[in-house]
Amino acid sequence: MTVTVAGAASTNFGKHPESSARELFVDAATEALSESECALSDIESVYVGNFMGALTDDQGHMGALMADYVGVPEAASSTVESACASSGAAVRQATQAIEAGVYDVALVGGVEIMFSKGIEEITDALANAADNEYENEAGLTFPGIYALMAQEYLSEFDATREDLAAVSVKNRDNGVSNPISQFQEAVSIDEVLESRPIASPLGMKDCCPITDGASAVVLVSSSYAEANGLDAAVTVAGSGQAGDTIALQDRGELARTRAAERAANRAYDDAGVGPGDIDVCEVHDCFTIAEILAIESLGFFDRGEGAAAAVDGETALDGRIPVNTSGGLIAKGHPVGATGAAQIVEITKQLEGRHPNQVDGAEIGLTHNVGGSGASAVVHILEAGR
Amino acid sequence: MTVTVAGAASTNFGKHPESSARELFVDAATEALSESECALSDIESVYVGNFMGALTDDQGHMGALMADYVGVPEAASSTVESACASSGAAVRQATQAIEAGVYDVALVGGVEIMFSKGIEEITDALANAADNEYENEAGLTFPGIYALMAQEYLSEFDATREDLAAVSVKNRDNGVSNPISQFQEAVSIDEVLESRPIASPLGMKDCCPITDGASAVVLVSSSYAEANGLDAAVTVAGSGQAGDTIALQDRGELARTRAAERAANRAYDDAGVGPGDIDVCEVHDCFTIAEILAIESLGFFDRGEGAAAAVDGETALDGRIPVNTSGGLIAKGHPVGATGAAQIVEITKQLEGRHPNQVDGAEIGLTHNVGGSGASAVVHILEAGR
Repeated sequence: MTVTVAGAASTNFGKHPESSARELFVDAATEALSESECALSDIESVYVGNFMGALTDDQGHMGALMADYVGVPEAASSTVESACASSGAAVRQATQAIEAGVYDVALVGGVEIMFSKGIEEITDALANAADNEYENEAGLTFPGIYALMAQEYLSEFDATREDLAAVSVKNRDNGVSNPISQFQEAVSIDEVLESRPIASPLGMKDCCPITDGASAVVLVSSSYAEANGLDAAVTVAGSGQAGDTIALQDRGELARTRAAERAANRAYDDAGVGPGDIDVCEVHDCFTIAEILAIESLGFFDRGEGAAAAVDGETALDGRIPVNTSGGLIAKGHPVGATGAAQIVEITKQLEGRHPNQVDGAEIGLTHNVGGSGASAVVHILEAGR
Repeated sequence: MTVTVAGAASTNFGKHPESSARELFVDAATEALSESECALSDIESVYVGNFMGALTDDQGHMGALMADYVGVPEAASSTVESACASSGAAVRQATQAIEAGVYDVALVGGVEIMFSKGIEEITDALANAADNEYENEAGLTFPGIYALMAQEYLSEFDATREDLAAVSVKNRDNGVSNPISQFQEAVSIDEVLESRPIASPLGMKDCCPITDGASAVVLVSSSYAEANGLDAAVTVAGSGQAGDTIALQDRGELARTRAAERAANRAYDDAGVGPGDIDVCEVHDCFTIAEILAIESLGFFDRGEGAAAAVDGETALDGRIPVNTSGGLIAKGHPVGATGAAQIVEITKQLEGRHPNQVDGAEIGLTHNVGGSGASAVVHILEAGR
């Protein structure tokens, strides 16, 4: 059964000091629902991606909370958590439920409130996505983990800090014209290279920011889509999810994200397409090195060749494979639980021809959402209506 | 497609001061896997129910962590959270994925580490399942919430504190012979009535304890079951999930759990059976009043009639509808994220004829797992192999 994206929306990403998680989620969900033209009473299930609500909002049970505040308290609901891949996993579970014939209409989204918390509290909360016993207790937090991956990459391949910086420059460029982006100013290579050192070789501008935000999509079955005249809309053509060891130390290769390779292969198989068929993609660039590893794992570039992609313009808006036309996590921001759904929102806009950084003729798009240092990965392939 | 329970196991419930969440989960999963005779390499997906790991273990991303420690790091994984219904919801999502044809073998379980934490920390953590803004901030925690429901019930119907206490007496009796139970001593009506007041009318022995523990089940597709000679095993015949307002104050009736009514009706429809067909059930008796509301919501008793059930022996091992033959949450214990899966484990043992409190001829069983004060409910109906 085909699953259709009937509506898709994100709040502005950035600082929302006056908003609670429920307010942001409802804002995104209401816009997605309005766009979908589905009746509120048609929603049978609500899936919420959230990672740190228990720590930042003293609030769990977000599925039930959001279903209630969206206006469908009777719906089945749950929170899905796979660290930073939480709402990617939520989209996948909703898709499976629709494919199983259990639901015709599901609301799937994610939300995170981070900015108003202190940087130490958020760093600690994010560290819960790693192996607490063997990584955090040893002093390793995520900038350090990705810095190790970057060091290994720079040592193994013919790549430089400038190659990393070019990813940030490209994504910040894309963020300028995305109205929801947290950062809407371009940066230069030198500004990235000279940004405050975080964990060598990564500077501040190699890292995604701390972000408040929410995203939501309305997924419907093919029979519902047909009955409601949605048959020309974007569809979920393929989905793949896979894992890897939770701790970086247990992997044979540090400069490689094998969970994403596995998830991508499963999604390509499911959709019956390959890397060469993808017109546009959103990848999980929590750090500049992460985008380089992503585009290699997805099969767009051979291992070691991804570093030159941004420098050479191959991942630019007019490049061979435009990557993170939204600005990505680096410019658009990374409200952890919302990021996977936000990627679906951005690709949906591309395939509907209404993205602020529209890629001409985009018909097949891909999203790549990663949890932790690559212990979880979820890849979706979306297709434009024909 | 039918989903088969190929293996099911729980750790001992109670105090595990020396064990981490991963150790307990792996213990339960290893036993369930061994029982299933599935090859480890056949596991394609891992679902983990967990509610408070971020608060009690500084650990999120439990899906990936447990997949890794069970020995299948490459599997797709996620954590599913619906407060105290987390692993009930996880079982449902795994069942849907198998029904959709995505996986043949899924490992589904839950885990919670609670006992070694302080009572105040755990009370705060549990309160995250309610509406933090409108309930917890006003001073309401779960014993208070269920006490309000009990007060309303006692005032609306011809019921007494003794009726509540009889639930505890029955479940503690059942716990005596369940080797995994946290409490294995019987209590008298007077001991319940005289137990330390917690929130009137509930005393200490009306409440489930704080518990460490894990449970796991191996779910497989019908084609896998057939290929591996499992066709006589227990199957998941029906599943239903529904919701209600997260805050008690927003409900029209306090002494009624409508999410459970809705979930039960969906599960009965799915399985093509009714309340009269159920031979044995496990219900979410986090407090004595909760069991009474549960057996009414499930259609075993009319509203207001559930209070007399334990007093009259109708829910006893040899009664019309044996309820919580495991001892329930009150005796067996309530490691929050594990409870839904633990109920599946107990009913599987009943339907396989190997439960310590075996109900003669049990062929159809039901599980009832609730999140918060009834904002989430998941009901499953299992059938013995024929």
